[in-house]
Amino acid sequence: MNKVTVCRKAHFNAAHRLYRKDWNDAQNEAIFDKCSNPYFHGHNYELIVSVTGEIDAETGYVMDMKVLKDLIKLHIEDAFDHKNLNEQVPEFSTLIPTAENISVVIWEKLRPHISSEKDLSITLYETPRNYVKFSGPN
Amino acid sequence: MNKVTVCRKAHFNAAHRLYRKDWNDAQNEAIFDKCSNPYFHGHNYELIVSVTGEIDAETGYVMDMKVLKDLIKLHIEDAFDHKNLNEQVPEFSTLIPTAENISVVIWEKLRPHISSEKDLSITLYETPRNYVKFSGPN
Amino acid sequence: MNKVTVCRKAHFNAAHRLYRKDWNDAQNEAIFDKCSNPYFHGHNYELIVSVTGEIDAETGYVMDMKVLKDLIKLHIEDAFDHKNLNEQVPEFSTLIPTAENISVVIWEKLRPHISSEKDLSITLYETPRNYVKFSGPN
Amino acid sequence: MNKVTVCRKAHFNAAHRLYRKDWNDAQNEAIFDKCSNPYFHGHNYELIVSVTGEIDAETGYVMDMKVLKDLIKLHIEDAFDHKNLNEQVPEFSTLIPTAENISVVIWEKLRPHISSEKDLSITLYETPRNYVKFSGPN
Amino acid sequence: MNKVTVCRKAHFNAAHRLYRKDWNDAQNEAIFDKCSNPYFHGHNYELIVSVTGEIDAETGYVMDMKVLKDLIKLHIEDAFDHKNLNEQVPEFSTLIPTAENISVVIWEKLRPHISSEKDLSITLYETPRNYVKFSGPN
Amino acid sequence: MNKVTVCRKAHFNAAHRLYRKDWNDAQNEAIFDKCSNPYFHGHNYELIVSVTGEIDAETGYVMDMKVLKDLIKLHIEDAFDHKNLNEQVPEFSTLIPTAENISVVIWEKLRPHISSEKDLSITLYETPRNYVKFSGPN
Repeated sequence: MNKVTVCRKAHFNAAHRLYRKDWNDAQNEAIFDKCSNPYFHGHNYELIVSVTGEIDAETGYVMDMKVLKDLIKLHIEDAFDHKNLNEQVPEFSTLIPTAENISVVIWEKLRPHISSEKDLSITLYETPRNYVKFSGPN
Repeated sequence: MNKVTVCRKAHFNAAHRLYRKDWNDAQNEAIFDKCSNPYFHGHNYELIVSVTGEIDAETGYVMDMKVLKDLIKLHIEDAFDHKNLNEQVPEFSTLIPTAENISVVIWEKLRPHISSEKDLSITLYETPRNYVKFSGPN
Repeated sequence: MNKVTVCRKAHFNAAHRLYRKDWNDAQNEAIFDKCSNPYFHGHNYELIVSVTGEIDAETGYVMDMKVLKDLIKLHIEDAFDHKNLNEQVPEFSTLIPTAENISVVIWEKLRPHISSEKDLSITLYETPRNYVKFSGPN
Repeated sequence: MNKVTVCRKAHFNAAHRLYRKDWNDAQNEAIFDKCSNPYFHGHNYELIVSVTGEIDAETGYVMDMKVLKDLIKLHIEDAFDHKNLNEQVPEFSTLIPTAENISVVIWEKLRPHISSEKDLSITLYETPRNYVKFSGPN
Repeated sequence: MNKVTVCRKAHFNAAHRLYRKDWNDAQNEAIFDKCSNPYFHGHNYELIVSVTGEIDAETGYVMDMKVLKDLIKLHIEDAFDHKNLNEQVPEFSTLIPTAENISVVIWEKLRPHISSEKDLSITLYETPRNYVKFSGPN
Repeated sequence: MNKVTVCRKAHFNAAHRLYRKDWNDAQNEAIFDKCSNPYFHGHNYELIVSVTGEIDAETGYVMDMKVLKDLIKLHIEDAFDHKNLNEQVPEFSTLIPTAENISVVIWEKLRPHISSEKDLSITLYETPRNYVKFSGPN
């Protein structure tokens, strides 16, 4: 059985701020440093969505990359691109938008749309030097 | 026991077309869209071959990268580069040259030349935004 | 007067073959080597379109990048992507589709759509290691 | 006389918003689209600073890259990184922080610190697909 | 339980030579070819350090990337950057500085500084085309 | 007349040291810092050679890229790759191998082999963040 992983890159630009509402400014700056700037800062997030499954013998595809591209556009890019993650994306109204948490949210938003016998993994670059990977709870 | 993975990048340029001979043009276009263009299109395929094994205590190598480079040149680049995959590469006379299937064919062509106690994994970029990974049947 | 150059990256995948119809196969192979393969080969072409002009004081733009992006899509990507340049793109029915000639054709196709007081320059990557630049006739 | 250009890459992350205070929201959205999101969005800006001059015969340097690196850190990164350009960077209190305007501001901030017989040029990537170049007024 | 991998890129430049002191020059050249040049050669090593663990519910971090960045600077960059690995880095006084062995040494140097319930993995690019990965002994 | 620039990337790995023989160690370290390490350090040099000229109407080429690739291999890669620039490359026996000087030497070595009506330009990356450009004396 030949399981192949297919990967699709996408990207979105967003503003965010790392802070806890139940902490004061000094506490937030002690932990989150300049990432807690109350005026926000932002990133070009580079996203790689990976789907692992068997090759369909009829098409030679694990998954049609156009379908995957459209799913990413609909559920992630349209929701996150050119947005303020803290203020305009409901998932982060109480969750701190660290790269770690964003990768989990992306995984949770895409998981229902990928057939259940396939595995899903998320790689998210916050900067060219910092990135995270999440493959689902275990 | 220290198992290390060594990776070597290579590349080849090729033309291909995604279509099934037993389907008519309309069926092929419905599934493969512009990738089924009867006049072919093409890609710069970027290939990463990864070999995992123990470090040889005498040389400090898992595998001599020059040997791996030469194997890739002989078995993959010379066979695929500047070729029409559908028309000129025997493995794809009946197999659709999707990135998924190409990665499996590359794995099968290289596997006999890598010592059996080592693992082999293939990463193949069809475009900078689409790529696949295959690590052998399981 | 502050002249700024704004640059937009795009890409297309295509098949091509380098050959002269008035030469025989041996002559073509002598000059164009494996690039003259009669079955075609292909590339992921990476394109950078650069427009130089004064900053508009009202908008802060030299040119709206969305407009530039749409021009590239309409005139270049839709015309070249997933095509066989020799067989399906009229400009190359008699012109050899070398990277040099493709860059000139792209320049000529975009020039009428960029306002005349602005300069236009084309960079075209045929592979990650080979690319060309053209800034118009002189 | 051997003039060489030396280039140094740097980067900063920032939030911004494209809008004119003298326009209403509808006008701003008509021109700046989602870039005028009132809650801001952000980018990883990649910056290349290029200095052109003669090679110093004694050191073999056009300019000590450590000095250039420190100038960029002091005058650009410390001023822009993890900031909201509209709200926290004085140069953009009335100037729209488009990539074009940001490149001009960076040039103006660095120019006094580079010796006058040398040329200065700025390249600024707003995203991996959009970038601008500015080499001073002419 | 949501385990996420956080990755941080770093780099260092170094000279090295591949050879065994107990072999003569001809033996070394037979095995290590031009990498055994007695006058040394060098590389820009690109390093990716990956740490896998649970997200801290309070901070949204697996690990503070600033802390990881500082650990890499202190234990790896300061020890290896602009050094001759054979002559100036004690770990390679008797160990051949192949990419494989360097990745193991980096892992061993960082492991004590990462909390034990987290996994550590090293990716090391010796050139843009050759790289290795090590995730600890097993 | 359509002048196009064709560019070819190549690379070599080398060790070097920045120092003047007529200065003592303290003077060298004051100017060249850790780049003057007496045990040498090294880099993966990425080289781009650019040739500008008219398109040959018969071939569609400014210059056959295979010829350019072979010239770079013969005159630059074979001379510099896996070498110690100070000790093993005659041009640097008295010239400090800064990136600036190396780019001039590469230009001088290639210039006689490019036809005189074409322009030649050299771009040399010493690290991914530091690079230089040289287009000949003026």
